[in-house]
Amino acid sequence: MKFQTPRGTRDFLPEQMIKRQYVIDKIRSVFEKWGFDPLETPAFEDWGLLSAKGGGGEEVKKEIYYFKDKSERELGLRFEFTVSLARVVANNPQLPKPFKRYQMGPVWRYDRPGSGRWREFWQIDADIVGSKDILADAEVVCVACNALSELGFRDFRILLNSRRLMENVFLEIGIEKERAEEAFRSIDKLKKIGIDGVEKELKDKEFPPEQIKKILISLNSCKEFKSKEVLGSLKELEDLVKIIGDFGYGKNIEIDFSLLRGLDYYTGPVFEIVIGENKQSVSGGGRYENLVQLVGGNSTPATGLALGIERIIEIMEERNMFPQKKTNTKIFVASIKSEMIDEVIKICKKLRALGISCEYDIMNRSLQKQLAYTNAKGIQYVIFVGEKEIKENVFKLKNMSSGKEFLLSLENADPIKKIISSSV
Amino acid sequence: MKFQTPRGTRDFLPEQMIKRQYVIDKIRSVFEKWGFDPLETPAFEDWGLLSAKGGGGEEVKKEIYYFKDKSERELGLRFEFTVSLARVVANNPQLPKPFKRYQMGPVWRYDRPGSGRWREFWQIDADIVGSKDILADAEVVCVACNALSELGFRDFRILLNSRRLMENVFLEIGIEKERAEEAFRSIDKLKKIGIDGVEKELKDKEFPPEQIKKILISLNSCKEFKSKEVLGSLKELEDLVKIIGDFGYGKNIEIDFSLLRGLDYYTGPVFEIVIGENKQSVSGGGRYENLVQLVGGNSTPATGLALGIERIIEIMEERNMFPQKKTNTKIFVASIKSEMIDEVIKICKKLRALGISCEYDIMNRSLQKQLAYTNAKGIQYVIFVGEKEIKENVFKLKNMSSGKEFLLSLENADPIKKIISSSV
Repeated sequence: MKFQTPRGTRDFLPEQMIKRQYVIDKIRSVFEKWGFDPLETPAFEDWGLLSAKGGGGEEVKKEIYYFKDKSERELGLRFEFTVSLARVVANNPQLPKPFKRYQMGPVWRYDRPGSGRWREFWQIDADIVGSKDILADAEVVCVACNALSELGFRDFRILLNSRRLMENVFLEIGIEKERAEEAFRSIDKLKKIGIDGVEKELKDKEFPPEQIKKILISLNSCKEFKSKEVLGSLKELEDLVKIIGDFGYGKNIEIDFSLLRGLDYYTGPVFEIVIGENKQSVSGGGRYENLVQLVGGNSTPATGLALGIERIIEIMEERNMFPQKKTNTKIFVASIKSEMIDEVIKICKKLRALGISCEYDIMNRSLQKQLAYTNAKGIQYVIFVGEKEIKENVFKLKNMSSGKEFLLSLENADPIKKIISSSV
Repeated sequence: MKFQTPRGTRDFLPEQMIKRQYVIDKIRSVFEKWGFDPLETPAFEDWGLLSAKGGGGEEVKKEIYYFKDKSERELGLRFEFTVSLARVVANNPQLPKPFKRYQMGPVWRYDRPGSGRWREFWQIDADIVGSKDILADAEVVCVACNALSELGFRDFRILLNSRRLMENVFLEIGIEKERAEEAFRSIDKLKKIGIDGVEKELKDKEFPPEQIKKILISLNSCKEFKSKEVLGSLKELEDLVKIIGDFGYGKNIEIDFSLLRGLDYYTGPVFEIVIGENKQSVSGGGRYENLVQLVGGNSTPATGLALGIERIIEIMEERNMFPQKKTNTKIFVASIKSEMIDEVIKICKKLRALGISCEYDIMNRSLQKQLAYTNAKGIQYVIFVGEKEIKENVFKLKNMSSGKEFLLSLENADPIKKIISSSV
């Protein structure tokens, strides 16, 4: 009887995992350079917590892995990290503020699996809790840009807007917050249904024609709105642009007044990072000020974003941005005869002490079969251990892709480090 | 409304996570140096797969997180990695052999939470699939020893036995395999119930007195058993001891003929690694030859072990083996006035380009409050940026624990790397 992975989930074989780790390690190292520390929370949470963000609605159950444990507790696999972060902050008021944390790991959604859509996928979040300053928003945007640029991306765009700005614009048009949310829901579909589609929806929602006209204008420019509140929000957005510029990402910014990012969770600047000509979204986030309080904590401002690594990996594969590497093993120590095992082990110990990853034959195979394995696994270097070499206390290192050979001694094995690190 | 983590699960705040990552990163790096490549499998699996190892018994459901998805598929959160590995090998016959992989991540058991027992905990496995040679068993034992020794452990013991040896000894005593399993189950409890307890259980199971006598002798020494099969198994065990010795862990070995490690899953050498005087178990494993076939693959020999990192972390904390580190941030760039933000950002960019983790104030706080934050977060170094310093193009770096100060310039910031790396 054969078994498959559950629907919508995948195995990651070594070659694929090495790529994933390359991305995850790079992002983690950038996040840490910016002073974000790691946090980890359980894979499943109280159902009440998971649904807090969406207002406790039962319909969320359809979209997640919801289950009861043996004591009938309602639980669900996490589908994002933010509510868990809010819970941690609410329950640990002693944490110094700003609390800058990253979290990475799998999340689960009961989505219809399709191209690029999985039921189990990784996400990396960076959030700052406790600062209401625009510097915090700039920080999460810039750390994400820094991570993307370390991965080799140049053509990413930062789409910026402010949810509060748009609320203020709508107030000036004469639309109260609750009505504005209805319009926002239509505007959110702009990319899908086009500007005509948005106009039609607003008409169906019975906004008066003069309001619709102004709404459509605001999506392109907020210049003609001049209330004190609008000007204040615009100033804040300008400050954000300035700081992002200071960090060197000014030319990547694109103000997009139609960017609203879903429903009433966000309360200030919102952002999205997209890559390439068809603007594939790899990151999104914004300021949210009510979540910690919503899960029982003190009122605490927060801002953050999530990086979608599945998409990032996909684009990097399309663009051939990964180093060629099928295995972490650098050297295979091949032996002509199985009696040379003592010598082979000595060499392996030495190499590992130098921090060099190596393997030897543990299947009692002929030299030919050892080399076939080396080739199948994609190991770049082979050390040949023969009787003559043992007698003369040397060994031969061969680069299997270039064919180049080096004669080295065990007493002075340091040069090997140089040879190996000169080729990736 | 406040929420807690689900029963038996934990949050890991940054200070704790930094310790966990220290352990996980070290182990990962050792595993890779030995040529083990990473594999990742889904967090949940088909219930049929999860129960394959235990013979498909329904009672396993009581001990795991079992649930049905919305299409009534029977699933369960993984509680170990081996069956998933066997599934991967069965479904991917193209993988070069030996297939040496490590896997790390959380596993879940519906256990009664208690001291050191959690429902969500991490495990790191190293397995070799495809080699029937004793060299493979030596490899998994030694890579684990190398990892423990890199973490700073010296007093670990490798408990060694061979399940096949004991089966052969029992055959010589005149006990067939099925009956032997019954005796094994009692011997497995030796540490709990003592030798008298084992003897009593064997009596209750109606083993004849002369068999019981011989069984009890075999637990101390197999010298007096001389069948061809016993001698063959003993020779294999000796070979294993020799290779482990070649890798430098000979003095850590302890042959323990009472070590049987559970039921009929293991088919050859079995091992356990314990630490300290009270022999706390941190790793266990052995050879298993039937699992891949059991889940639909070709008959494939395999051997491997699991490292229990929760226990390792616990012991390291008790013994104070962790570097003192509350945060990954090395330097806080403090400013006297908020107008100096441009200068502060310039310094941060420079430091990060050097690979140094740093932060600055994103809350518009007084210098005093900035330093209080630095102290609360445990950041060791502070750079002070003042008007005089900006004018003279220098900055002052202070070690907050020793009080030592250094005057440095932005143009030649490399010395800073040396200063910082000289203290952990």
